[in-house]
Amino acid sequence: MRAVRVHGYHRPPSIDDIAEPEVHGPMDVLVEVNAAGVCRTDLHIIEGQWAEKSGVRLPYTIGHENAGTVLATGSAVTNVAAGDTVILHPFVTCGLCRACRAGDDVHCADSKFPGINRDGGMAERMVTNARACVKLAAGLAPAEVAALADAGLTAYHAVRKAAPLLYPGAHVVLIGAGGLGHIGLQSLAALTPADITVVDRSEDALHLAAELGARHTVAADGAHVDAVRDITGGSGANVVLDFVGEQGTEADGVAMTRDAGSYFVIGYGGRVDIPTIDVISREISVIGNLVGSYNDLDELMTLAAQGKVRLRTKSYPLDAALDALADLDAGRLPGGRAILEPVKR
Amino acid sequence: MRAVRVHGYHRPPSIDDIAEPEVHGPMDVLVEVNAAGVCRTDLHIIEGQWAEKSGVRLPYTIGHENAGTVLATGSAVTNVAAGDTVILHPFVTCGLCRACRAGDDVHCADSKFPGINRDGGMAERMVTNARACVKLAAGLAPAEVAALADAGLTAYHAVRKAAPLLYPGAHVVLIGAGGLGHIGLQSLAALTPADITVVDRSEDALHLAAELGARHTVAADGAHVDAVRDITGGSGANVVLDFVGEQGTEADGVAMTRDAGSYFVIGYGGRVDIPTIDVISREISVIGNLVGSYNDLDELMTLAAQGKVRLRTKSYPLDAALDALADLDAGRLPGGRAILEPVKR
Amino acid sequence: MRAVRVHGYHRPPSIDDIAEPEVHGPMDVLVEVNAAGVCRTDLHIIEGQWAEKSGVRLPYTIGHENAGTVLATGSAVTNVAAGDTVILHPFVTCGLCRACRAGDDVHCADSKFPGINRDGGMAERMVTNARACVKLAAGLAPAEVAALADAGLTAYHAVRKAAPLLYPGAHVVLIGAGGLGHIGLQSLAALTPADITVVDRSEDALHLAAELGARHTVAADGAHVDAVRDITGGSGANVVLDFVGEQGTEADGVAMTRDAGSYFVIGYGGRVDIPTIDVISREISVIGNLVGSYNDLDELMTLAAQGKVRLRTKSYPLDAALDALADLDAGRLPGGRAILEPVKR
Amino acid sequence: MRAVRVHGYHRPPSIDDIAEPEVHGPMDVLVEVNAAGVCRTDLHIIEGQWAEKSGVRLPYTIGHENAGTVLATGSAVTNVAAGDTVILHPFVTCGLCRACRAGDDVHCADSKFPGINRDGGMAERMVTNARACVKLAAGLAPAEVAALADAGLTAYHAVRKAAPLLYPGAHVVLIGAGGLGHIGLQSLAALTPADITVVDRSEDALHLAAELGARHTVAADGAHVDAVRDITGGSGANVVLDFVGEQGTEADGVAMTRDAGSYFVIGYGGRVDIPTIDVISREISVIGNLVGSYNDLDELMTLAAQGKVRLRTKSYPLDAALDALADLDAGRLPGGRAILEPVKR
Repeated sequence: MRAVRVHGYHRPPSIDDIAEPEVHGPMDVLVEVNAAGVCRTDLHIIEGQWAEKSGVRLPYTIGHENAGTVLATGSAVTNVAAGDTVILHPFVTCGLCRACRAGDDVHCADSKFPGINRDGGMAERMVTNARACVKLAAGLAPAEVAALADAGLTAYHAVRKAAPLLYPGAHVVLIGAGGLGHIGLQSLAALTPADITVVDRSEDALHLAAELGARHTVAADGAHVDAVRDITGGSGANVVLDFVGEQGTEADGVAMTRDAGSYFVIGYGGRVDIPTIDVISREISVIGNLVGSYNDLDELMTLAAQGKVRLRTKSYPLDAALDALADLDAGRLPGGRAILEPVKR
Repeated sequence: MRAVRVHGYHRPPSIDDIAEPEVHGPMDVLVEVNAAGVCRTDLHIIEGQWAEKSGVRLPYTIGHENAGTVLATGSAVTNVAAGDTVILHPFVTCGLCRACRAGDDVHCADSKFPGINRDGGMAERMVTNARACVKLAAGLAPAEVAALADAGLTAYHAVRKAAPLLYPGAHVVLIGAGGLGHIGLQSLAALTPADITVVDRSEDALHLAAELGARHTVAADGAHVDAVRDITGGSGANVVLDFVGEQGTEADGVAMTRDAGSYFVIGYGGRVDIPTIDVISREISVIGNLVGSYNDLDELMTLAAQGKVRLRTKSYPLDAALDALADLDAGRLPGGRAILEPVKR
Repeated sequence: MRAVRVHGYHRPPSIDDIAEPEVHGPMDVLVEVNAAGVCRTDLHIIEGQWAEKSGVRLPYTIGHENAGTVLATGSAVTNVAAGDTVILHPFVTCGLCRACRAGDDVHCADSKFPGINRDGGMAERMVTNARACVKLAAGLAPAEVAALADAGLTAYHAVRKAAPLLYPGAHVVLIGAGGLGHIGLQSLAALTPADITVVDRSEDALHLAAELGARHTVAADGAHVDAVRDITGGSGANVVLDFVGEQGTEADGVAMTRDAGSYFVIGYGGRVDIPTIDVISREISVIGNLVGSYNDLDELMTLAAQGKVRLRTKSYPLDAALDALADLDAGRLPGGRAILEPVKR
Repeated sequence: MRAVRVHGYHRPPSIDDIAEPEVHGPMDVLVEVNAAGVCRTDLHIIEGQWAEKSGVRLPYTIGHENAGTVLATGSAVTNVAAGDTVILHPFVTCGLCRACRAGDDVHCADSKFPGINRDGGMAERMVTNARACVKLAAGLAPAEVAALADAGLTAYHAVRKAAPLLYPGAHVVLIGAGGLGHIGLQSLAALTPADITVVDRSEDALHLAAELGARHTVAADGAHVDAVRDITGGSGANVVLDFVGEQGTEADGVAMTRDAGSYFVIGYGGRVDIPTIDVISREISVIGNLVGSYNDLDELMTLAAQGKVRLRTKSYPLDAALDALADLDAGRLPGGRAILEPVKR
C-alpha cells in the first residue's frame, strides 16, 4: 500500500509503497484510512523537533488525526466490527493502569501514539487498538471530522474542564481563534452560558468568532488586556483559555484573569512566569491541558453530529500529501484544515 | 487603652495610650483582645513592605491574628453577644457581593483587613464586624488558637482544596514544615488518607513532622527531588504543597509533581517559571491559595477543639510586644509562635 | 396603602387600606411593588393548607414573587439604593449561619418568607432586607420577571444541580412543561448540551416545548415510559426532572431513570416509594430541590436579560387580584402566569 | 479439582470433583483460589432468591469474594503474571463501554459476575479476566482480605461517595455496624474528619464501634432517632449511611438526615417511602450504592495494607464449606466473616 513516510529530518517525506499492516494482537484493529488531518505537528516532526522526545525509528508513516473504516479486528475486540466507520483516539492505551481505570486515557502508563512514535494514518491502512475506536454516527463522514481527533479533542477537553466554572454572567476569554481555538469557541457555546470574548490578531478570525458565538471580539493590538478589563467590569475573566501560549499571550492571559480565576494553557512555545506573591495574593490557578479522553472524543463526535461543532476543510488525495504540507506551511489554509483522503469514501 | 502602634517605617512600633474603639455601625463588634499572634507579616509591615499595597495611614495598630471576648455589639448583630469567646476571621467582609454570597469571603468585593489596613488587635480592645466572629468551643483558650486566625487558616484552606485529590495510596509532598507547614501537616493527617512526605532543611522540623503524621521525611539537601521521585515510585506526587515559595522550592515543587498532578503555592517570595510545553505535555496545575473562608476557620476550630491541630506558643504581655517581635526576627521561636496577651484571660 | 389580605381560610382575601410599611432594622429595604406573581401556592394558602406549617397570624398580605423599585434602605444597606429596580429573593436570610456562609441561602437557620409567614408583595409597598435584593439589568421590567422569583428560581436551581451530569449525548427527561417546567426547559437549553425529552399530558405544552429546545416530546398517554426507553436506546435517561411529583409521575420518573442515574423531585403531592433493592441494584439517586440561592436568582436574571429565559404573562391591576386568583384556579392561564401590578411602572 | 456446587435450590450444595478451568480468551486469568469469603448472598442463592435475576444454569460453583495466586494468563494480559497474589474485583468487565471508560466498572454494559451468574471461587481454581485482578501488597494474605472483595468494597464505595460531604464538625450516622458496617466505619475514620455516630441493636457491635472510631454509639431501642437528633444539636446528620435498609431503618434513616442532607442506602430488603413534599421541602437526597469500582478496591487494599481496615475472620478448609454456610446461617460468626481456604497458602 502507499504511505507518507519520513526517511530523514529536514527533508520532505516521500510517498512509498510499503507492506500492508496486519492485525497481530487480540485487541488490534485494522482500519482503512479515509481521512487523515494534516497538522502543524507534522511539520515539526519533519523538522526533527520530536525526534528525541518520540524516539521513533526512521523511516515511519506520519498522520495522527485519523478516521476511516474498520477492515479487521483481533480476537478480543467487541466494540467494533468490519465495516464500521470510526474516528481514532490518538492514543493506543492499555486499559489496565489506574489512569485508564479512572477514565484518564491520556495519562495511561503504557500508551503508544501512532503517527508520532509508530506508523500513523497518512497511508491507505493502519493498525490501532479497540480502545481507540469511536464509532461515527450515520451522518458523519470521516473527512469532516478527522481533524477533530487530536486538535479538536484538545480544545474540547480544555472547555470541558473549564465548563463547571462558567455560570450565566461569568466571563471567558479565548485567546487565538485559529484551528484549535475556533473548535474551542464552538464547544464553549455548546456547553456553557458564559459571556465569550475572543482575542486574536486576525480580523478574519474575529469575524468568524462573532458568527460562532463570541459576544465580544478584541483585536490583539496592544490594548487588548485593557479592553478585556473593560468588558469584564474591571475585574478580568473567570476563565482565560490560551490557545497560543507564546509571544506574550502567557502574561496577557494571566493579566486578563480575575482574582480567584483560572488561566488554561493549551497552546505552547513560551513560558508561564509569575511571582509567587501574585499567584497567592490573587489566588489564581494555572491549568495545563493535554489532548482529551476517549469519552471526550465521543462527546465531541456527538456535537459534530448535531452540527454544533463544524470544521472548514480542504481535501487532498494521498499523492498530494506534500502539497498539503506545503500549503499548511505557507499559510494558504486560513481558518481551515488540510485533510488527506488516502482511500476516498 | 494601650496599643502597639506603627508611627513610621524602618523603626520599632511604640506602645501608646490611645482612645477606646467603639461600636458605630449596626454590624460592628467590640472585642477585648485576649490573644494576638505575632507574625512575620508584622515584621514586613514595619519594614514598609506593605505600605503601598495596604495604603494604610500612620500611625495605626498592627495585629491581624486575634482572639478574645465580645464586649459590645451593633444593633444588627445576632450571632454573638457580650461575653462570648471568639476567634476573628482576618477579613471584615460585606456579605452582599457575589463572592460573599458564594462562601468565598476572601474575595469579597469590599473588605477591610484589621492590622493591615486599619487598626488591628495588638491592643486591649478592637472593633471588627459580626461576619468575622467565630465562637470558640468551651475548652479552647484564645491564646491557644489566635495564631490559627490567619497563618493556620491559610494552611488549612490549601489542604481543604487539595483533599479531594488525595485518595488512599495517593502521595502528597509538603515543602516547609515551619509555622504554616506544620498546621498544614496536621490538617492533612486529619482530612486525608494520603501518604505524606515532608521536605525541610531543618532536622528538628523533620522530627516534629514524623510525630505529626508524615510517613516519609526528606532533608532538603540537594538530592530531595530525587528522593521524592524514589518514594513515589518514580512518578512524583499527586499534590505538592509549597509553604516556602522561594529560593528554588518553586522549581523543586513542580519537579516533584506527577503528570496530571497539582502544585499548590502557599509561601511566596520567588517565581513560578515553567515552559508552557511542560504545563501542557505534563498537564499539571499550579494552584494559588489565600487565607481561607469563614467556614474554613470554623472547621479549623473544630479540629483544634478535637485536639487534631495544635500549636506550640510562647506568651508575652502587651508591654513586651517589642521583645516578641525581636524574638521572632532573631529566630528564637523555633517551631512555635509568639502570642501577645493584651488582656489576659 | 392598598394590599391583598387574607382574613380567614376558605374565603377570598380582601383588598384593604392598611398602614404603610417602614424601614426599621439597619438591613431593611422598603420596596415599591411593581409586579407580584400570582401562584398556585396563593390558592393553597387561602385553602388553609399552609396555616399550620407557616404559623402566620391573620390577617396578612400574600404575594411571594415580587419585583419593584427601592424606596428606602436601612443604615447598613450598601448593595442597593433608592431608585434601583430589583427582583426579590423569596427568603429574608440572616447571612451569618453556616448555610448562608456557604451560599446556601435556602437553608438559612433563621429566615423569613414574606407572603408566606409575614406580609408579602400583593401590596403597593413591602419591606424585605438587603440580602434579598437582586438588581435588574436596564432592559428588564419587573412585570416580565417577577414570576421567576420563586417558581422560576426553583426550576433553575434544579437544572443548575443537574447540569454537571449532562454531557453531550446524555439524556434528560423533563416531566411536566407547565409554569415551572418550561422555565426548567429553557434553563436546560441554556446550560447544557444534553438531549432533552419533554413528557406532558397537554399537546399545547408539547408544542411549546419543541419550540423551546426539546428534541423529543412524548404525550403522557400511558405508553410514555416505554417511549422514553426507546428514545434513550433502552436504558433510560441520565437525569429525570419531575415537575409534577404526584399522580404517578413519581413511579414513572424512577422507571425512566437509567442505572446510575438521578431522579430530581421538584413538583410534589405524591410519594417516592421504591424498594431498597432497586435503589441499590440500580444505584440510582433521588434528589430533592427547593427554591434556589441568591446567586442562582442572579444567574437566572442574566439569562432573562439575554433573552434565553422568557415567561408568558398576563397583567392585572392590584384591584383585580381576585380575578387573577380566579383565572388561575379555573385554568384560564394556559402556559402563562398572572402578574399583579400594584404600582404600574 | 474440587468445588462447591449448587445442583438445586432449597438444598445444600455439594462438593464435587469437576474439570479444571482453563484460560481461553486473551484477557483470561486462571487463579488458584487461596481464600473465598462466605457471604449471606450465598445463602440467598441456595434459597433460590437469585435464580431468576442471575439466570444461571445449574449446577455451578458459588463464591464471589475471592483472592488467590495467578497460575496462567491469556495472551493480552499485561498487568499480572503467574505467581502474583491477587484479590479479584467481583465483576468481569468489558473495558470498552462508556461506563468502563469513565471508571464506573460496576455499570459496565457487558459484565459477568463469577459466583453469581457463572462459576465462582469456592473451588481450587477459577477463571476471571485481567481487569478484575488487583495485586496484593507483600504483607497482605488472601485470607485476610478476601471478604473485602464484595462486601467490604460496597461499604468503602459508599463512604468514598459520602466523603466530600463530611467536613470537620459534620455529623455522619452509620446504621448497622455488622459485616459491611464495620468496614464502612473504619473507612469513615480513615477518609473523613466527621463526627461518627453508630446505631445498632447489638451491644457488642456498639462496643466494637467505639473502638473503631465512633464518637457516639446509640442502641436501636426505639428512642434512637431522638438520640441522634440530640447528638446533632437537633438538626440531624449531614449524611446517614444505612447498612440495613429494612425493618424500619429506611424511615429512621430519613428522619435522622438533616435538611439538605443525604441518606445513603447500602443494605436492602425494605422500601424507601417518602412524601414528595418532604423530599423537596427538606431538599434531601437518597443515594443508592452498589459494589465499587476497580480503583475503589485498589484503594481499599491500600487501607488494608496500612492496617486502617481490618476484618475478623474464621477459616475453613474447602471440604468444610457446608459447616461455614451453616455457621453463618445460625449466627455463629458474630462480628466476623467465614473464609474458605480451597488451596491454603
